[in-house]
Amino acid sequence: MSRFSFNQITAKHWDLVDLVKGLVEADVDKVALWREPVAEYGLERSAALVRDAGLEVTTLCRSGFFQEPGWFDDNRRAIDEAAALGTGVLVLVSGGLPHGSKDIKGARQHVADAIAQLVPHATNAGVTLAIEPLHPMYAADRCVINTWDQAMAIASAFPSDQVGVTVDTYHLWWDDTVLDKIEQAGDRIAIYQLADWITPLPAGVLTGRGLPGDGCVDIAAFNAAVEKAGYTGPIEVEVMNEELWQRPGREILAAAYSGYSGDIDPAKSTP
Amino acid sequence: MSRFSFNQITAKHWDLVDLVKGLVEADVDKVALWREPVAEYGLERSAALVRDAGLEVTTLCRSGFFQEPGWFDDNRRAIDEAAALGTGVLVLVSGGLPHGSKDIKGARQHVADAIAQLVPHATNAGVTLAIEPLHPMYAADRCVINTWDQAMAIASAFPSDQVGVTVDTYHLWWDDTVLDKIEQAGDRIAIYQLADWITPLPAGVLTGRGLPGDGCVDIAAFNAAVEKAGYTGPIEVEVMNEELWQRPGREILAAAYSGYSGDIDPAKSTP
Repeated sequence: MSRFSFNQITAKHWDLVDLVKGLVEADVDKVALWREPVAEYGLERSAALVRDAGLEVTTLCRSGFFQEPGWFDDNRRAIDEAAALGTGVLVLVSGGLPHGSKDIKGARQHVADAIAQLVPHATNAGVTLAIEPLHPMYAADRCVINTWDQAMAIASAFPSDQVGVTVDTYHLWWDDTVLDKIEQAGDRIAIYQLADWITPLPAGVLTGRGLPGDGCVDIAAFNAAVEKAGYTGPIEVEVMNEELWQRPGREILAAAYSGYSGDIDPAKSTP
Repeated sequence: MSRFSFNQITAKHWDLVDLVKGLVEADVDKVALWREPVAEYGLERSAALVRDAGLEVTTLCRSGFFQEPGWFDDNRRAIDEAAALGTGVLVLVSGGLPHGSKDIKGARQHVADAIAQLVPHATNAGVTLAIEPLHPMYAADRCVINTWDQAMAIASAFPSDQVGVTVDTYHLWWDDTVLDKIEQAGDRIAIYQLADWITPLPAGVLTGRGLPGDGCVDIAAFNAAVEKAGYTGPIEVEVMNEELWQRPGREILAAAYSGYSGDIDPAKSTP
């Protein structure tokens, strides 16, 4: 079977029912789900929908945001949701600085403390917490964990089936030291996600990512590094892009698969 | 005398003659100049203008862009311009990836090679090349040197009066390891520049910087780190911000000085 998994955000406006149908029709058997559309359709209904379709849920995206009040209860709910959906991986976006704060060191320590508090519940639920280092341009408002080293420093206090790291090419590509470190990461890689870096960045810098192959990231080098680490799990295509989102879901799926397969020949772009 | 230096780009639309007049009237004796407005007014005329006004030129901004054809001649000209303006520091923004390239490692090696080729001319001219690590969000299109370590690795092959590093709070604040490294940098710090991180970022992510104190950067911590390194040189306020640029030059200068002095009381905002 293909290791390709379609991350739901890549077709943000594709209705969950249609998405599942589209995946089945395209013989894609893996999907990453997002909490908001799952909640909208209903957790149990969503779980039944993907289960009945024979889909493997590779991750639930995303929890974290530890600087928000109520983070503890919300993250416990997210863990329960992941378990209900049958996925063993919950992606964590750790949150930015509290409003008005200049204490990034303190915010980072809080993330480590928060994750430690969540580990028992996650372990009981059979869910690995997958810390995602986000690009440094998100340090203020979205995630204070910005490098591989920071994520690993937190994760390595726990067994790798309890806390892992999310490898996302978009967030890590600029780091001249990261490929060597990924190669040494062993089973600490909880999930591997693909997106490409394209410029110019749009305002807000959230929705200007490229499909794999459309930008300047050497994705083949990342593929080689995760392989060298021994990672054999799913490979998600996770792209947030306003223009892409305007296209029909099936087209986006086909484009994502093309990006995953490294084959950008349009004649071969159907999964 | 104050260590405050006003970087010309902070008041991008302030005519050079008016800028010099405004600095003198505000008792500011240091300025950082940019190549384009200097060229527009004329190199020799600009040099005479600042010299006659008793201004110290703390840096010339900026050269580099080593992925451009003609980088060698252009950088040699920039070195000559710096010398003509009487500054000993030329800031280097090293350039992004060549069009269509995914080889960031190769681009970085080329930067190191290019700087090595420029050192003899710079040394003869008495100009220190000040490598500026730019925020990782500029890695593709503006500068492939994105961390303190990368800049130091290139600089440390040369004496510190030949090749140094530019410490800019805007570009480095997110790095959890950088303050400790700056403390150990000794005379490798060629110039120290202040700007603050504010969100949301504008499209293109170039002109959305904040005045010192307006964002989430712990500038006091950077001040302490450069002091611990033994740096006693000028402190430039260098802010690119579309809204700020719409204000009159004198107001911008006053706001920049307030940011520098850490005193944001408007009643005390005149240098």
